Amino acid sequence: MKELYHVLGAKQFAKDELEQLFDAAQEMEQVVARGGDRRYEGKIMTTLFFEASTRTRLSFESAMHRLGGGVIGTENAAQFSSAIKGETLEDTIRIVSGYSDVIVMRHTDIGAAKRAAKVADIPVINAGDGAGEHPTQALLDAYTIRKEFGRIDGLKIAMVGDLAYGRTVHSLSYILANYQEVMIYYISPDNVRIPDNVKKYMEEKGIRYEETSDLDSVAGTIDVLYQTRIQKERFPSVEEYEKASGKYIVDSELMSRLKQEAIVLHPLPRAGEIAEEVDSDPRAAYFRQAVNGLYIRMALIDKCFGGAGK
Amino acid sequence: MKELYHVLGAKQFAKDELEQLFDAAQEMEQVVARGGDRRYEGKIMTTLFFEASTRTRLSFESAMHRLGGGVIGTENAAQFSSAIKGETLEDTIRIVSGYSDVIVMRHTDIGAAKRAAKVADIPVINAGDGAGEHPTQALLDAYTIRKEFGRIDGLKIAMVGDLAYGRTVHSLSYILANYQEVMIYYISPDNVRIPDNVKKYMEEKGIRYEETSDLDSVAGTIDVLYQTRIQKERFPSVEEYEKASGKYIVDSELMSRLKQEAIVLHPLPRAGEIAEEVDSDPRAAYFRQAVNGLYIRMALIDKCFGGAGK
Amino acid sequence: MKELYHVLGAKQFAKDELEQLFDAAQEMEQVVARGGDRRYEGKIMTTLFFEASTRTRLSFESAMHRLGGGVIGTENAAQFSSAIKGETLEDTIRIVSGYSDVIVMRHTDIGAAKRAAKVADIPVINAGDGAGEHPTQALLDAYTIRKEFGRIDGLKIAMVGDLAYGRTVHSLSYILANYQEVMIYYISPDNVRIPDNVKKYMEEKGIRYEETSDLDSVAGTIDVLYQTRIQKERFPSVEEYEKASGKYIVDSELMSRLKQEAIVLHPLPRAGEIAEEVDSDPRAAYFRQAVNGLYIRMALIDKCFGGAGK
Repeated sequence: MKELYHVLGAKQFAKDELEQLFDAAQEMEQVVARGGDRRYEGKIMTTLFFEASTRTRLSFESAMHRLGGGVIGTENAAQFSSAIKGETLEDTIRIVSGYSDVIVMRHTDIGAAKRAAKVADIPVINAGDGAGEHPTQALLDAYTIRKEFGRIDGLKIAMVGDLAYGRTVHSLSYILANYQEVMIYYISPDNVRIPDNVKKYMEEKGIRYEETSDLDSVAGTIDVLYQTRIQKERFPSVEEYEKASGKYIVDSELMSRLKQEAIVLHPLPRAGEIAEEVDSDPRAAYFRQAVNGLYIRMALIDKCFGGAGK
Repeated sequence: MKELYHVLGAKQFAKDELEQLFDAAQEMEQVVARGGDRRYEGKIMTTLFFEASTRTRLSFESAMHRLGGGVIGTENAAQFSSAIKGETLEDTIRIVSGYSDVIVMRHTDIGAAKRAAKVADIPVINAGDGAGEHPTQALLDAYTIRKEFGRIDGLKIAMVGDLAYGRTVHSLSYILANYQEVMIYYISPDNVRIPDNVKKYMEEKGIRYEETSDLDSVAGTIDVLYQTRIQKERFPSVEEYEKASGKYIVDSELMSRLKQEAIVLHPLPRAGEIAEEVDSDPRAAYFRQAVNGLYIRMALIDKCFGGAGK
Repeated sequence: MKELYHVLGAKQFAKDELEQLFDAAQEMEQVVARGGDRRYEGKIMTTLFFEASTRTRLSFESAMHRLGGGVIGTENAAQFSSAIKGETLEDTIRIVSGYSDVIVMRHTDIGAAKRAAKVADIPVINAGDGAGEHPTQALLDAYTIRKEFGRIDGLKIAMVGDLAYGRTVHSLSYILANYQEVMIYYISPDNVRIPDNVKKYMEEKGIRYEETSDLDSVAGTIDVLYQTRIQKERFPSVEEYEKASGKYIVDSELMSRLKQEAIVLHPLPRAGEIAEEVDSDPRAAYFRQAVNGLYIRMALIDKCFGGAGK
């Protein structure tokens, strides 16, 4: 039996594969510009979302359509789950495997995508597994950086916000660990600092990083400001939350201190942590970043199907 | 940049455009009779419903499929919204714009479609914005009248029911205001009369209208009886509701007083305001009207994409 | 007008038709193995689920896609219903008929599919109507038996579990009643025995059956063990439930007493009534059975559309 290609976590990608994937995503931009193609006509994607994430789901479904494929799926996959009828995730996956050619799944439990991949006889793409990983987000983030700068090597990247629970920054760190001379600034309130296991991984890979709670001190140094949301419920009181989150708002004032060639990214949705006044600044790259998700997901689907498009 | 064609409100349509659109809808009937075509294969529609309206959504999705296109979407778009994560409608639209070629949206807020169109870089079709408008319903209503009578000019049209909150009758009034010698009867209980701004618009356009609470008095005069639902919650008590709604039930008795060539329309769903005994009367046009929604929406999609089909 | 082909209940199928259908399903396995085809490109299926059943819905949608067709639908069809706006099922169906080419519906009320078929002008497939029937499940069950044994005639089939409320076993009984020399064992706790009307039907058809609460006594005799779930809420107390359900668990111990050529089926999802240790036994046919649902549904869709594929 042919080995299946799954997308489960950001650590699975070596630099060569990343570069190939980013090249493929770049080609997909051309495919979309030409109105898509029909290369996967007849193929079916199942989107199996055990928690709703409309944006991510639509992005994957658009990617599949742009390549000619069909989509079935649900945002109510929790109705399959043990909570309702006692079925295991493994049983669900075994059955859905028979209905389609690739599964895109989001789940509330860490490791759910890996468990699915073990029993699936079609490729599985992890679209977020609880507090675990969100590898396709990290890939589109890294792709955006490469596209905006022409490279990732040598860049200074600040990740800002809730670094403890924000799975995106973990997955992105693992991706960046493949590159040379990268410097990462982990900037967060003290109660939501980057976890030890991420730092340990970066150290093993020889990546330099610095932890601080002070965004201002590095604003003039960094190439990429990767902003994320800070969630109220992580803080003991509203006062402490507002004190903490207020320190990291990206507004015109902060933009004035960023380098002229710096960019601002955000996985979106944003709440108030990037002011709307920033949107018109050419360094505001977060909407360009969002559409890059389409190209990366097209490239990943292509890869799952054996890359007829390469 | 090419200017985008949006469908936002009924007032945007001049008579020429309406007539072209109705001609296009008529052609779409032929397209459907031939089993649809593939003219928009590869194009993607996003249906973004911030409140569920399964019927309207299915009608748009069917229209897109009949023209060969693909559909992505959600009935749970409220999960995008500020209520959940604090994202603005504008941010949502900016992102979804990158995933598809046309957005069909329903929202709970008046003016939401216009706000969306301002930031979208693809066409936006308003499928209902709260108490605002529902232009595609009004277009299919007017198309049905033209189809049943061969013309709209000169007809006497009664709109019956909740004229205060029923956005359909507002949008339809704006459409009818383009035609000659139309006479409109606004027939409603006193507490849900047609709003002043609609009347003012009709006056400016030189359209004759009459307000009354008495359906019986005009039954023998009218060409079109446009029936709508009256909602219980608009009335101070169940008794007053029943008294009011009971006066406007379309049944065999009422049908016996309509002209032989009159028709009965209803945007559906109906509750009890048209008796089932009326269904078999050839003047009961509301199911014919419902399927006309498909043709009008196909014509609108075609127009959004530049009308390759004309 | 051409007569429509509906799939409403298991009793509608005579043996000839069953055998043709199973042959068609077998051909569909080849179609899927070749990656599907486009024979129904341009056709639209509406999946109208008044209660969620993600698995069944995905199976139908996959079947339609594998034949090139498009799908529109909802898992929230109850929002159409009288509960929300007072619309009758009949009105809903009349309207949806105009949007698509076949309706697949699940409903909470017995007889709902038949009511729908009366007013639809396109084929209706019953995907479960409350405590009524689930004919496509029964067809895939019977198809699995024929495929595994090469025949159904002469087999000894045990149905195990909740035989009172499990609509699957009723529908399957009606299908099996067409075959020769079939012997059925109805094995259940006393409070959820097979209903009299099913027994009466089997008697009229001359099918031998036996009722018992003792699975062990027939384990060595049977060819097919059709296991189903027993639901807690049918029992007066948790203790009685556990006592009853514990008697029918299929585990290694029970498998050791089945014949070497027997098979175990289950409509899935399972809770604990088949132990996972059984999965690796070649006689565990329930995952093979699940994928057969795809082929049967493809064959039924093909039949609804006039069987261009035969």
